[in-house]
Amino acid sequence: MLFEITVPQFIKMLTNLNNCLDKATAYADHKKFDIDVLLNSRLAPDQFNFIRQVQIATDTAKLGTARLAGKDAPAYEDNEKTLAEVKARIQKTIDYLKTFKAEDFKGAEERHISQPRWEGKYLTGFEYAAQHALPNIYFHVTTAYSILRHNGVEVGKKDYLGEMPYKK
Amino acid sequence: MLFEITVPQFIKMLTNLNNCLDKATAYADHKKFDIDVLLNSRLAPDQFNFIRQVQIATDTAKLGTARLAGKDAPAYEDNEKTLAEVKARIQKTIDYLKTFKAEDFKGAEERHISQPRWEGKYLTGFEYAAQHALPNIYFHVTTAYSILRHNGVEVGKKDYLGEMPYKK
Repeated sequence: MLFEITVPQFIKMLTNLNNCLDKATAYADHKKFDIDVLLNSRLAPDQFNFIRQVQIATDTAKLGTARLAGKDAPAYEDNEKTLAEVKARIQKTIDYLKTFKAEDFKGAEERHISQPRWEGKYLTGFEYAAQHALPNIYFHVTTAYSILRHNGVEVGKKDYLGEMPYKK
Repeated sequence: MLFEITVPQFIKMLTNLNNCLDKATAYADHKKFDIDVLLNSRLAPDQFNFIRQVQIATDTAKLGTARLAGKDAPAYEDNEKTLAEVKARIQKTIDYLKTFKAEDFKGAEERHISQPRWEGKYLTGFEYAAQHALPNIYFHVTTAYSILRHNGVEVGKKDYLGEMPYKK
């Protein structure tokens, strides 16, 4: 279940983020301003801008998935500057996430997960997914969304959540 | 596991939100402005203000937990206006969530979950938790946090995430 509650949702949220970015692009075209203005916007002077929010959201998905599966994630250079580069980063992360299957997460709940800044300390895979990876990706996708919303892009809750698999 | 990934995390995030609100109160005191200004702030003119973000975050936690457990949640009047009232709403939601135990979620993954606006359609409990309740609570807590951050309150990612159960 740890796989089902993380990887498909990471893919869905990054897809939604990509769709929000398309709405932002249409808005910039319509208002005749450069999309780079939005890519470099932020909600507070000492908070990360839109591009950095996307970089962290994709890192959270990429590293979270790799760590839970006990694999090494591909390194990114974090040098995106243009709309095309930002969209390519989202897409290559989605493509990477799609290479994982539920069986790759065998033993993931109990796996010891660490990262350099934790100085040798660790969380169990379950704790890491529940208390770190999921809250983090939602945080950065929401913040990226809010930067667009704050600047007039007509995104709404449905763009953030995406389609629901409703049944009759 | 559906219980473990939702209810304790709902409690943790609402506790973190309460702590952010305390930082906002200290900031308002220090800057000598009325905390009501922050409670009524928003990131876009047609987006909900801070109080409404808290109302929806607490509703998501309260209703999500009750629905997954197959119970009826207590109704709230949604009439909070003051800091004390907002903090009381967060606290009473935390107290309500703490009445639930893992065994209350027996069968929750397959339970059919619906709400009035879905017009008779439903999600399974697992889909509801993974794709609706969790993304929603993180969205509204992050948005409430961002309203404070945007207005100069010194909250950071650690205030949002809360303590991690690191082990050596």
